[in-house]
Amino acid sequence: MSQHQHDPGPATGAGPTSGAIEEIEVRGHIVDSLLLPKILDRILMMGGSFEIRECKIGVRRADPSYARIAIRADDHEALEAILGDLVEHGASPVHPEDAQVVPADIAGAFPEGFYSTTNQPTQVRLGGRWVGVDDQEMDCGIVVDKAGGKARCLPMIHVEVGMPIVVGHAGVRVLPIERSREVSPFGFMSSTVSSEKPKSVSVQGVVDAIRATRAAGKKVLLVGGPAIVHTGSAPHVAHLIREGWIQTLFAGNALATHDVEQALYGTSLGVSLSRGESIEHGHEHHLRAINTIRRLGGIARAVESGALTSGIMYECVRAGVDVVLAGSIRDDGPMPEVITDTLVAQDRMRRAIRGVDFALLIATALHSIATGNLLPASVKVVCVDINPATVTKLADRGTFQTIGLVTDVEPFLRSLCSSLVLESLSP
Amino acid sequence: MSQHQHDPGPATGAGPTSGAIEEIEVRGHIVDSLLLPKILDRILMMGGSFEIRECKIGVRRADPSYARIAIRADDHEALEAILGDLVEHGASPVHPEDAQVVPADIAGAFPEGFYSTTNQPTQVRLGGRWVGVDDQEMDCGIVVDKAGGKARCLPMIHVEVGMPIVVGHAGVRVLPIERSREVSPFGFMSSTVSSEKPKSVSVQGVVDAIRATRAAGKKVLLVGGPAIVHTGSAPHVAHLIREGWIQTLFAGNALATHDVEQALYGTSLGVSLSRGESIEHGHEHHLRAINTIRRLGGIARAVESGALTSGIMYECVRAGVDVVLAGSIRDDGPMPEVITDTLVAQDRMRRAIRGVDFALLIATALHSIATGNLLPASVKVVCVDINPATVTKLADRGTFQTIGLVTDVEPFLRSLCSSLVLESLSP
Amino acid sequence: MSQHQHDPGPATGAGPTSGAIEEIEVRGHIVDSLLLPKILDRILMMGGSFEIRECKIGVRRADPSYARIAIRADDHEALEAILGDLVEHGASPVHPEDAQVVPADIAGAFPEGFYSTTNQPTQVRLGGRWVGVDDQEMDCGIVVDKAGGKARCLPMIHVEVGMPIVVGHAGVRVLPIERSREVSPFGFMSSTVSSEKPKSVSVQGVVDAIRATRAAGKKVLLVGGPAIVHTGSAPHVAHLIREGWIQTLFAGNALATHDVEQALYGTSLGVSLSRGESIEHGHEHHLRAINTIRRLGGIARAVESGALTSGIMYECVRAGVDVVLAGSIRDDGPMPEVITDTLVAQDRMRRAIRGVDFALLIATALHSIATGNLLPASVKVVCVDINPATVTKLADRGTFQTIGLVTDVEPFLRSLCSSLVLESLSP
Amino acid sequence: MSQHQHDPGPATGAGPTSGAIEEIEVRGHIVDSLLLPKILDRILMMGGSFEIRECKIGVRRADPSYARIAIRADDHEALEAILGDLVEHGASPVHPEDAQVVPADIAGAFPEGFYSTTNQPTQVRLGGRWVGVDDQEMDCGIVVDKAGGKARCLPMIHVEVGMPIVVGHAGVRVLPIERSREVSPFGFMSSTVSSEKPKSVSVQGVVDAIRATRAAGKKVLLVGGPAIVHTGSAPHVAHLIREGWIQTLFAGNALATHDVEQALYGTSLGVSLSRGESIEHGHEHHLRAINTIRRLGGIARAVESGALTSGIMYECVRAGVDVVLAGSIRDDGPMPEVITDTLVAQDRMRRAIRGVDFALLIATALHSIATGNLLPASVKVVCVDINPATVTKLADRGTFQTIGLVTDVEPFLRSLCSSLVLESLSP
Repeated sequence: MSQHQHDPGPATGAGPTSGAIEEIEVRGHIVDSLLLPKILDRILMMGGSFEIRECKIGVRRADPSYARIAIRADDHEALEAILGDLVEHGASPVHPEDAQVVPADIAGAFPEGFYSTTNQPTQVRLGGRWVGVDDQEMDCGIVVDKAGGKARCLPMIHVEVGMPIVVGHAGVRVLPIERSREVSPFGFMSSTVSSEKPKSVSVQGVVDAIRATRAAGKKVLLVGGPAIVHTGSAPHVAHLIREGWIQTLFAGNALATHDVEQALYGTSLGVSLSRGESIEHGHEHHLRAINTIRRLGGIARAVESGALTSGIMYECVRAGVDVVLAGSIRDDGPMPEVITDTLVAQDRMRRAIRGVDFALLIATALHSIATGNLLPASVKVVCVDINPATVTKLADRGTFQTIGLVTDVEPFLRSLCSSLVLESLSP
Repeated sequence: MSQHQHDPGPATGAGPTSGAIEEIEVRGHIVDSLLLPKILDRILMMGGSFEIRECKIGVRRADPSYARIAIRADDHEALEAILGDLVEHGASPVHPEDAQVVPADIAGAFPEGFYSTTNQPTQVRLGGRWVGVDDQEMDCGIVVDKAGGKARCLPMIHVEVGMPIVVGHAGVRVLPIERSREVSPFGFMSSTVSSEKPKSVSVQGVVDAIRATRAAGKKVLLVGGPAIVHTGSAPHVAHLIREGWIQTLFAGNALATHDVEQALYGTSLGVSLSRGESIEHGHEHHLRAINTIRRLGGIARAVESGALTSGIMYECVRAGVDVVLAGSIRDDGPMPEVITDTLVAQDRMRRAIRGVDFALLIATALHSIATGNLLPASVKVVCVDINPATVTKLADRGTFQTIGLVTDVEPFLRSLCSSLVLESLSP
Repeated sequence: MSQHQHDPGPATGAGPTSGAIEEIEVRGHIVDSLLLPKILDRILMMGGSFEIRECKIGVRRADPSYARIAIRADDHEALEAILGDLVEHGASPVHPEDAQVVPADIAGAFPEGFYSTTNQPTQVRLGGRWVGVDDQEMDCGIVVDKAGGKARCLPMIHVEVGMPIVVGHAGVRVLPIERSREVSPFGFMSSTVSSEKPKSVSVQGVVDAIRATRAAGKKVLLVGGPAIVHTGSAPHVAHLIREGWIQTLFAGNALATHDVEQALYGTSLGVSLSRGESIEHGHEHHLRAINTIRRLGGIARAVESGALTSGIMYECVRAGVDVVLAGSIRDDGPMPEVITDTLVAQDRMRRAIRGVDFALLIATALHSIATGNLLPASVKVVCVDINPATVTKLADRGTFQTIGLVTDVEPFLRSLCSSLVLESLSP
Repeated sequence: MSQHQHDPGPATGAGPTSGAIEEIEVRGHIVDSLLLPKILDRILMMGGSFEIRECKIGVRRADPSYARIAIRADDHEALEAILGDLVEHGASPVHPEDAQVVPADIAGAFPEGFYSTTNQPTQVRLGGRWVGVDDQEMDCGIVVDKAGGKARCLPMIHVEVGMPIVVGHAGVRVLPIERSREVSPFGFMSSTVSSEKPKSVSVQGVVDAIRATRAAGKKVLLVGGPAIVHTGSAPHVAHLIREGWIQTLFAGNALATHDVEQALYGTSLGVSLSRGESIEHGHEHHLRAINTIRRLGGIARAVESGALTSGIMYECVRAGVDVVLAGSIRDDGPMPEVITDTLVAQDRMRRAIRGVDFALLIATALHSIATGNLLPASVKVVCVDINPATVTKLADRGTFQTIGLVTDVEPFLRSLCSSLVLESLSP
């Protein structure tokens, strides 16, 4: 066989010599990661035709492959549309142009036609050189520093008049993260979100990922909701922090409040954690906990003063964990450390995720989706929730690298804690 | 205050002397179990009026109370309707009649107007004496043996022509089971079905209930679905059986099949339980497992022959557990021990529940509801499922004594296993 | 029977004449609303004993009842604890004291021992007179104006040094809202949260409640999440607004964004609402929608300029609906109208709920719980979600007056829309 | 590029000339249906290497493609394993052998090594000719009639001693059903199981599928659970039957019972369908409904006698719908028409699905999975449930052709009914 020839026949109404043509190339696990078929399918779907000019397929599973494909469309506009689409699938023109840049005309908004980012590693072509985009984050624009040969993702809110913003798809290429093709404990979990899977294997996968992250000198981020406390899991998390397994914590007022409530009153939402029963006047405990902390001037002061002596927040203060408590409209109080402006909180979270290489999202849809919005695709993410809908939502909103575990939070954290702590004690 | 007087005024259109009147009495925790208000409310709702003639309320929480109430209605029919309704709430006439009995005129069906049973302890009045109804089960009729002074619940299917069947509500009284008012680890769980509850408390409650059941010489029944095997929990259940904590097992072909699959192939529904991944051709394993057992003549023979050497079914054979495998239309095979006729299976289950005092229903809606239909209200039931809908369904269908735990099956069974086995080893 | 006498016997170790005693009274549907048994149970549970000195029970279901009960406890402290507890159940001392008030010593926090409010109508006793508390809201304190004879609920954040704050339970009484005892379309729904209920009855109940609210000149509040748009329900809501059925809207950036996305691009989260398929580059649409609105200076300006011509937000601008868009950390953009500070947003919501008598919470846990926190118990609330967990959470957090409908949002809103609009057209 | 050459290098320890080699071919939408990459991936994963000898890719999306691939493995056994695996992905040897057949040695069980079927169209090679397998059904064996040149799927239970059963993978090939690549209303739904999708589009997809099925003279199968009645949807289904849209009904005792209950008493599980409230003694209605039907001799007799005059079962009798009521262990009664032996019921269902081309599975996990087990992959299946777990389970168990709709049953059926009936009335 000499080549895959695809001349548009009479059915598409374009003669073989008419129309526009451009060559693209794509590298990586293009066959087994389904990249090649997806690209060919997109071309056909958008009305183009293709010819595979070169195709080298790796022999072993770890070997990369390469394909060079000529794309033909009816006219230049149609061809541009196809090329723009393929950029996100990792295909790039063989003979690329520089990225097109226009100055922002309005503060806090991008120019029309701005390039909208994904969470995948991206490069822009500046002065003939491909430059990596810093601070990779989905749903941003790209601001460039041509002189310095640099580019970075920019949230819409931070646009200032005159900033040079990338528009269109020319001169932009995405290098999709390839899921490790090695047999991994998470391999199976990329499939359906289901509770009917072997559970101890899943826990071991998280244990391994956390240990690998720490061994590489990277940070582990925990994003947690108040159900951690309601289910009686605060001691497990406290233990993990004390033993140094968590460097960063994203949570809301509710986690902090119920954690302090359980430290001061032994209840969470008024339910006794040792007896499982509602306590008389227990529903007031969380408000009294907040009031107490506000009277003391904050959580850190409460620890210093000896008023708060246990729990997740206590251990965070003691261990110097980087905590971001972000406010929400359902907050009582809130705790003094809570950042009530959501844009300020987002920026604080952006700074805190630097160096994070593994994120564990537990029992919170709001904070998990918010974190998923900010993380680059290279950060491994495991989302644990007893409700499959939370995991499904996260995936639907573009955080594709997320692995979902549908399980109960308390036993999951108990197992995680005992595995990490036991193993860390062995020589 | 001398008494609670309730004469129907002009608004109800009945003079104080007109209409029909009857005295009822009710005993037990009639105030704090909400029995008394419920009864008064029913009377008013059905158009009657009442007068509390006597009311002794227990001083301490454990003390029983007593009330005697006169009910007045417009006519005899209205009064009868009210009395019939109150029977199920534990109220009975002060001056009762004998139960009314008519012979069955058709095999396999009750006479019109038959008394339809609940799962609460029930008595019928025969020859002036109150007689306990045997084999208490909901949704049955009552057949009496006047000569022998006996009565028992009878499923519709077992009605034979001529059997004396109770009709109407006269001469029948229900003695509702009172939930222990003592502080119990399950106290809180009777409220909303929710996953946001302290989890280790719940496990401890089940541990205590099982130990108490065994200490009293009663049987523990496990009703389980195949998710037990899918989640990697078969070793935990096998361990519980080996240590003597389970006397009776209700399951279907699926549990047995996937248990044998994991014993023979290390997979469940084709997913490796040690690695969590789908195995090549793994989806055939369950069918090959069934075929192997059918070729050997059954599970028991497979154990005898040394072909099956581990798993839940293996331990059941070894420990002499009373196993009922009931068939369903989704069965492959099935395993030779499966009872494919559902009525035969029900009767087999009816026999097997004698002596059971605690039932643990895990990850199966079908078998759990079927078991709930058969159990008297005196048997404590805990239903464990990661899906709140299963627990809700069970409660909706009348198995009120059920306590629902919304949690993940594998860690629950792991904890249960280690608690029961560890504690049983200590002196 | 002359009276219910409960002298603590030897078991409790207190002679009949020792200890402290106090009379309380309770009014309303104290039997059928289970108030009386709950109160008696609380007294016994907290170690007290009681004597019912007077008890008048209403003859018909609508008639109110009255009870006067003497409570005895071992000492004054124990008696105070019991009385404090009973306040919330609507019982109040027969011979009450004035509320105790202390000045706030710290800004943004209550004094120790502050009275923590519920969402039930509450009165405080000032200068011998019972005064209604304004701005009733759960989890607040009460600040009083003795001179003006007024009192109101005060969020913790708004405490200023010197404000007179109520402490303790003396001089405070709660008048619990009684659910209408009339047969209502919602009667059955107060039971288990379940999807297995007759659905058209539920819709009719909401229709009736909305019509009654409007007929009484009160406002209807809609609290909605973005799933309204994702499921294709935006036209139904737009129609309801256009026809005048909604006066107030609480939502977040996501609802506004996807509503504008569907108005501008015909997609929601990139999925075509007419064809149900993902659109090429559709995932960028929501960001481009936000950018467009930000470039135009906001939603209202976009309507004025003719750039936005349909959808929920468009109709709100046209109809002058009071819209509060509250920010969250998962927001992209956000839309200019979004209030990014959560405390500012809460205060804005507090103002907006005045005059609201019916609230419909649809497909949003965050905004629903936030709204539930602010609403007094007198406002009827219906929460609609396809996920039973959302409804359960709302109830667990104290919004008891909520009726939960587990159903799909789109057909629910379609039915609601056609019922309200059709009926409004008939003479 | 001349060809895709893949010689195993030193890493796999096999020289280019050693080992076993075999050519396979594969046809269809091998690129865009991801068939080709899946096959190449399987070869590498199982330790083989490949060389693409010929590859013609269709130019337009509807055009079929063809590939001929040489597979090399270390030895004959390894090669056989790979070939066996690829059979199920639609690849077949270029130079095939006849299927290998051995006589069954035991009744009710297959010989060791039997070929285990999928639900995809399958052919076996007999005497050099490819013969289609009749009665295609997953998890069966294949029995052949060499003389007649025929083959059919055989459930394990029906094996008789001496029957010629196919063993191994040689001489068997699967022709996978290709999902229509055309833009379809169901296109998007093959993705994640989620409730957040445009709903009216989904309904229209089902409407179109049912109309197409009827227009082609094929049957529509409805598989339904009792929630159809509980949610008040029985009139919609009755209407669909009356108008001729449903030819076959699979259900259990519960659907029939509650349908008759609502016809006789206006309740379902004791809840009034017109008022949504529990009715006094309503919980007895279902048992009385069964008793009444049993007294009359069955549902058909009840219709004949005029005792049953409305509802789903009534319309089925009137319209001559082929009804299979399959028994389960949770059945009360049961209704006389219920087939209590599950194996008998399965065989009855096997006969009834002949001619069915569209199956609508509503609100029943048990009957849906049972039906999914029996249907060939060519039958389009839509599963509607408010609980995403039911849909996920069905997919996990191999019914890949299922499209899941997470929505509420009542409004779905109401829409379906009005669309089908309205459209059928227009000219």
